[in-house]
Amino acid sequence: MQFARKDVLDMESLSVAEIQAVLDTAETLKEISTRPIKKVPTLRGKTVIHFFYEPSTRTRTSFEIAAKRLSADTVSISASTSSISKGETLADTAKNLEAMNPDAIVIRHSAAGAPHLLARLVNASVINAGDGMHAHPTQALLDMMTVREKKGHIDGLRLAIIGDIAHSRVARSNIIGFVKMGAEVVLAGPPTMIPMGIETLGALVSYDVVEVIKDADVVMVLRIQKERLQAFAYSSEREYAQCYGLTEDKLAEAKKDLLIMHPGPINRGLEIAPEVAEGPYSVILEQVANGVAIRMALLYLLLGGPR
Amino acid sequence: MQFARKDVLDMESLSVAEIQAVLDTAETLKEISTRPIKKVPTLRGKTVIHFFYEPSTRTRTSFEIAAKRLSADTVSISASTSSISKGETLADTAKNLEAMNPDAIVIRHSAAGAPHLLARLVNASVINAGDGMHAHPTQALLDMMTVREKKGHIDGLRLAIIGDIAHSRVARSNIIGFVKMGAEVVLAGPPTMIPMGIETLGALVSYDVVEVIKDADVVMVLRIQKERLQAFAYSSEREYAQCYGLTEDKLAEAKKDLLIMHPGPINRGLEIAPEVAEGPYSVILEQVANGVAIRMALLYLLLGGPR
Amino acid sequence: MQFARKDVLDMESLSVAEIQAVLDTAETLKEISTRPIKKVPTLRGKTVIHFFYEPSTRTRTSFEIAAKRLSADTVSISASTSSISKGETLADTAKNLEAMNPDAIVIRHSAAGAPHLLARLVNASVINAGDGMHAHPTQALLDMMTVREKKGHIDGLRLAIIGDIAHSRVARSNIIGFVKMGAEVVLAGPPTMIPMGIETLGALVSYDVVEVIKDADVVMVLRIQKERLQAFAYSSEREYAQCYGLTEDKLAEAKKDLLIMHPGPINRGLEIAPEVAEGPYSVILEQVANGVAIRMALLYLLLGGPR
Repeated sequence: MQFARKDVLDMESLSVAEIQAVLDTAETLKEISTRPIKKVPTLRGKTVIHFFYEPSTRTRTSFEIAAKRLSADTVSISASTSSISKGETLADTAKNLEAMNPDAIVIRHSAAGAPHLLARLVNASVINAGDGMHAHPTQALLDMMTVREKKGHIDGLRLAIIGDIAHSRVARSNIIGFVKMGAEVVLAGPPTMIPMGIETLGALVSYDVVEVIKDADVVMVLRIQKERLQAFAYSSEREYAQCYGLTEDKLAEAKKDLLIMHPGPINRGLEIAPEVAEGPYSVILEQVANGVAIRMALLYLLLGGPR
Repeated sequence: MQFARKDVLDMESLSVAEIQAVLDTAETLKEISTRPIKKVPTLRGKTVIHFFYEPSTRTRTSFEIAAKRLSADTVSISASTSSISKGETLADTAKNLEAMNPDAIVIRHSAAGAPHLLARLVNASVINAGDGMHAHPTQALLDMMTVREKKGHIDGLRLAIIGDIAHSRVARSNIIGFVKMGAEVVLAGPPTMIPMGIETLGALVSYDVVEVIKDADVVMVLRIQKERLQAFAYSSEREYAQCYGLTEDKLAEAKKDLLIMHPGPINRGLEIAPEVAEGPYSVILEQVANGVAIRMALLYLLLGGPR
Repeated sequence: MQFARKDVLDMESLSVAEIQAVLDTAETLKEISTRPIKKVPTLRGKTVIHFFYEPSTRTRTSFEIAAKRLSADTVSISASTSSISKGETLADTAKNLEAMNPDAIVIRHSAAGAPHLLARLVNASVINAGDGMHAHPTQALLDMMTVREKKGHIDGLRLAIIGDIAHSRVARSNIIGFVKMGAEVVLAGPPTMIPMGIETLGALVSYDVVEVIKDADVVMVLRIQKERLQAFAYSSEREYAQCYGLTEDKLAEAKKDLLIMHPGPINRGLEIAPEVAEGPYSVILEQVANGVAIRMALLYLLLGGPR
């Protein structure tokens, strides 16, 4: 499989074959992170800029580790220490970074579409590490890798996504990705958190969380932004937790080989109970481990070969 | 040419031969950044500390990339995450860093003279990445490299610098550097922005921007600090843009091979019109690309050979 | 000597033989930092995460330089740019980092015991870079290395620690370490700054600073947190400096081969007079240099061999 893309911006633009190539490559590269010497010279002499306009521990760390295990040189720019405070436009910043000949720019931005703008302006490969409420393709890819690793396949599975679908770039990228790979996706949550017309992405909608869990092969719980609960007319975190939080009693009728996922960081006792997050169904930490592998795979596929 | 300096602190102290050596070396090293493997082992095992008391995207990134393409190890310290908040003096910080045996310290500081103080206190090479309103020698060197690359020479050219000369370390270093290399430098801007006695640096002063542009081979537009406009009795950004902003109509009588430069980041529509910043005369992005080459050259000349 | 520990968390848990092994190793590795090529391939392909919840220049820089001179890959996380702002628990952050297969995590945290919690949760080696008012073992080890280097031995020496013992993790780790190695430790300072029962750690207590200095082989001056002075009923910095600051006149009867130490950053003229900090007894900068060597030694002993 030839991977001929310049950028990885969203799940819409990736073909089934490309997604499979990423997952296959990640599966192969994953082993590097378990060696005593966790490093291959593949991307020696390549420059990867990590450009994070929003704070992030796990995603930035995951990308940096991925790049370094492939021997790339990395430079990290965060909004707080950059000229963004000087009012430069993203387009100007982009062209300036490009002039320094980076091979890839990994960008996280609060504005949806920022990575797409960047990709049009630079010759470097651009990887979207999360843009506004739009897309988070590397999260979707690592989620798919985790499911495929545990289940052997994605097609035919039933994935339930529970929580604030409306504001979630993770949900959006996973819906598109899993539907594309032949899974059935059901969304559940408070009506105010499920946007009108989301079915056009190919997902079903339900408001009965217990029912949805019962039929699911994979349950993906979304992180709740606490500051948004009020706006959704929830008087308390406790009320949300009771109605939609993933608790052990809601799992009473779940399939025995259910997988429970969460993009992290988790709010313990809010959208997921601690005993569930650490319970036998949970693959949350496998997701994190696969995150490094997926990011290595993308850097490798985008930068590793002749272009 | 032997480059026997320990530090690069300002343009005053560099001789014509030394400036030429830097430009020649940068010209040679520039090609590395266009290779598939952008890395040479020249500075392997050297430690470069990037010590930035002021926020910066392009300069810090440019220096880090330069150091890494030469295989140096880099450590980055920014004011926000450092002990500076604990009230340590610069002299004490300097001696502490020195005790860790760095080979070079790149420093940006809001206080004029801070890099000179540092240089006196440490055995490591010190490169001034901008100090207060005093000097920004690597900017001047990359500007000179860009002009020489495009024009073949610097001597005999007429450079116009337009804007807030009084508060600009970029202007100061460029005046000194270009005059030293045999260029004629003319300063233009509002009278309040041109300091008394600046002619002693060897530059001419004019208040007629259009006239100055007409005769120039190179026009360097300075960034305007918006928060300073009021103090200069400008009622609005629009008024400044009209009088002194570099617009297409002010270029009507410009030379056909004019170069337009800007140290960045630009304020679009204030000191430079977008169509000019991206127009055929503009070499703004070449400046950025040459910035990496100049910084590689300085690190190489200061650290690469036996001292 | 086999160094079979997974973590270095405090001085209590290190045996005399282990401390000696660390000091011996540091002594050997120190020379690397004075070579023209300051780098050995020992930890190539190892991943070291520097996780600093509190701001720090010297300790973080020292650790990063140590890791890089051993060729490890480093990733730096500071509280200000991390998901900590998202309210994740330390335990969850720990397990997430662990999932990325780091070989070591260096942690500084405002909460005492945080590194111990981390160490129990991860397979990676954990090094405590300072936790609350509890412990700072790498500081104690570099202090011991400095004393041994200058005096040839530690046992039988008399160490005086002067200042705010109550709030000092540096004091606590040094008391335990030096007592364990056979030194006599005397604490001096205002009564309100010396906690009840500190003698149980094996130290003596005195309130007569001049007397204490007279008998000491090593005087370690602690940094005073200026904002705490009020709480200790000191009306002014000047008053503290007069009573407890290390000034030349207090050294009138000191031993001729006295060593004066300070963990830095120093408050000039408060707890130590400038002429003393830079005087002939001072080994403050040797401490900093040895800090790199100690951290190289710990990384080497924890990660370098087969485990």
